[in-house]
Amino acid sequence: MRILGIDPGSLVTGYGVVERRGAAVVHVAHGTLRPPREAKLAARLAAIHEGIRHVIAAHRPDLVVIEQVFVAANVRAALVLGQARGVALAAASGAGLTVDELSPQEVKRAVVGSGAARKAQVQRMVQRLLTLESAPAQDAADALAAALCRAHQGVLAALRTPAATRRRANRKAWTGFVLRRAR
Amino acid sequence: MRILGIDPGSLVTGYGVVERRGAAVVHVAHGTLRPPREAKLAARLAAIHEGIRHVIAAHRPDLVVIEQVFVAANVRAALVLGQARGVALAAASGAGLTVDELSPQEVKRAVVGSGAARKAQVQRMVQRLLTLESAPAQDAADALAAALCRAHQGVLAALRTPAATRRRANRKAWTGFVLRRAR
Repeated sequence: MRILGIDPGSLVTGYGVVERRGAAVVHVAHGTLRPPREAKLAARLAAIHEGIRHVIAAHRPDLVVIEQVFVAANVRAALVLGQARGVALAAASGAGLTVDELSPQEVKRAVVGSGAARKAQVQRMVQRLLTLESAPAQDAADALAAALCRAHQGVLAALRTPAATRRRANRKAWTGFVLRRAR
Repeated sequence: MRILGIDPGSLVTGYGVVERRGAAVVHVAHGTLRPPREAKLAARLAAIHEGIRHVIAAHRPDLVVIEQVFVAANVRAALVLGQARGVALAAASGAGLTVDELSPQEVKRAVVGSGAARKAQVQRMVQRLLTLESAPAQDAADALAAALCRAHQGVLAALRTPAATRRRANRKAWTGFVLRRAR
C-alpha cells in the first residue's frame, strides 16, 4: 500500500510518498514542486498539475491524501490557496486515484501527538518516524505527515476515543510508535 | 482570432467561444460543465479539468479569458471558488494557451455598459450581441461575456477615457455596437 501525500501551495507544493509494509511504514520519496515565481498564475498552476502527474507516474501510489483547509488569513489568501489545492485534487483524481482529505489537526495529532503542533515539530517528527538523514523541507514534511497519518490508520482508530482520554493518551501512544519505528 | 471564455464554479463551469472576423464577432459555441453533484470534490475538479481540455480540443481557441476574483462571501466560499478556478487556469495553460484575466467590472461594462450589471442583464445582452435564439445559461453567458469583452479590445480601448466621460459615453457606444451587430 503506497500513499502519496500532497501539501499544495501556489509557490511551493510539497509531496511525500510512503509505503506500508506489514506493520512498518517506509519512506519512498519526497520533494517540492516550485514553479518559476515570475511565471503567470495560470502557468504556475499548470506546472503544479504537470508535476503531480509526474510524481504519480514515477511512484505509482495507490492512494492520495491532501489536508483539508477550512481557514485562511483572508478571502484573498483563501482564493490563492484554493487554486493550488484544486489543481492538486484534480491532478490526483484525474490520474484515476482515490483522494482522501484529512484535517490538519488529525495529521498533526497523528505525527506529533498534538493537533496544535508547530511546523518545525512536524519536520523533526517526520524525520524521526521515517529515519531520514535530514529534516525534509516544510512543505514536503507536511505532505509526508499526511501520508504517514493515513498509513497508520490502524493506530489512529485506537486513538478515536473521547477527546479527554485521547489528550492524555496521545503523547504516550505516539512516543511508543516512534520507539517501535526506531528499532 | 478565436477566444474561449471560462466562468469556473465547483458546481457549474460555463464556457463560451467567440471568433473575431474583421470587425465582427461571431458566436462559435457555449455550454456548461456540470460534474455529478454526488461525486467527491476531487472527482468533480478532475471532471472540470477534463471538460475544459475537451472544449479546447473541439474548438481550438487562440486565447483563453477568465474573470479575476477578489471577493467572496467568506473564506470558505473563496476556497471552494478558488479550487474550480485553479483547475480552469491550469487546464487552459496546460493546453499551451495564453490565459488572460479580466476584472468582472471590465467584462460587465464592456457587454452591458455598466460595471454593476446584474446577471440577467448580461444574459440578455450576450444573446443580443451574438444574435442567439435564446439566452444562454447564466454561467455560459458570463463566459461568453468575458470572451466578447476580450474580442472587442479595440472598442474597449476607445472607452478607456476618464471615468466620468466613460459613464456618459458607455451606453451610447454599446448601443451603437449592438445595432451594428444586428444588421
